[in-house]
Amino acid sequence: MEGHHHHHGKTEVAARSNGNKGGLVVRVLALILTVAATIVTATNKQTKVVPLKVFDSLPPVNLPVTAKWHYLSAVLYFLVTNAISCAYAAVSLLLTAANKGGKSKSLRILIFVLDAFMVALLFSGVGAASAVGILGYKGNSHVRWNKVCNVFGKFCHQMIASIGLSLLGSLAFLLLVMIPVISSA
Amino acid sequence: MEGHHHHHGKTEVAARSNGNKGGLVVRVLALILTVAATIVTATNKQTKVVPLKVFDSLPPVNLPVTAKWHYLSAVLYFLVTNAISCAYAAVSLLLTAANKGGKSKSLRILIFVLDAFMVALLFSGVGAASAVGILGYKGNSHVRWNKVCNVFGKFCHQMIASIGLSLLGSLAFLLLVMIPVISSA
Repeated sequence: MEGHHHHHGKTEVAARSNGNKGGLVVRVLALILTVAATIVTATNKQTKVVPLKVFDSLPPVNLPVTAKWHYLSAVLYFLVTNAISCAYAAVSLLLTAANKGGKSKSLRILIFVLDAFMVALLFSGVGAASAVGILGYKGNSHVRWNKVCNVFGKFCHQMIASIGLSLLGSLAFLLLVMIPVISSA
Repeated sequence: MEGHHHHHGKTEVAARSNGNKGGLVVRVLALILTVAATIVTATNKQTKVVPLKVFDSLPPVNLPVTAKWHYLSAVLYFLVTNAISCAYAAVSLLLTAANKGGKSKSLRILIFVLDAFMVALLFSGVGAASAVGILGYKGNSHVRWNKVCNVFGKFCHQMIASIGLSLLGSLAFLLLVMIPVISSA
């Protein structure tokens, strides 16, 4: 048992309210970043006129081709993880603000558990989108997948921006998970 | 302040040692699962004789083609995340076992922070490997990436097994992050 345990109650309440204040700022950041990542991904679309061979015997025909987020399941998954996270960030922000001074311990623990799930969800989404993004930029000669970002440059740039936003949002959630434990030190 | 705060010291120590015991079991699981995922990924290799067109004017030649984990950057990243996690799981297991009853609070917090980083790392690796795995199985007609798992079936099956193991390992780390907070309730 720690020697100073008679101070414990006071210290814990002080730490908790500090953690709460810092936590609110980080939660607002997490919300802004995941909302931005969701919007930047969902509005990503590029149409380009590309010469395509329709019949082998005829010269290629110029046809408009569109790149959209829902053409790649990894990007769809990435969008869903960000949409879920920003919806949850908004709800948890209201609940945390309402739970002033961290009075309800069970609510604090529920929010901590869900924050940890968001870390897992967002990082898996960032991983999936980055893996496909790298294939888009570099292609892979071993499996004969050609790069596509030389054609759809604007689409790929916007994808990088949303992955960056989502990564920052993931780090914000990671920080939210750490705050209650570190502030109790 | 909570009314029962004079019981606090005793309750916390009891909860901490419970959390510690459960934590050790989950940490051993996390170690076994990430070690297994690392081995299954690193030993994955399949060679197949495939008809390849070397010259357009000549008929295809049967050539041996090998699928290996380091041909895809997403699989390489996946392997690295698992290798880091199992090395960390081994070290943290020794430290947690040595820190009997959770005496050193700063060590407990350091391990908590690193556990949380492992959650982020492993889930991003699982996301990356799954995204490329799905492309391998289904291909993508929009970007003209052909499926490859119809040729390298054994390689893809073994990849699925290691993704499954790594996902279970990630969930074990997620549980490790939750245990100290939930057991303090």
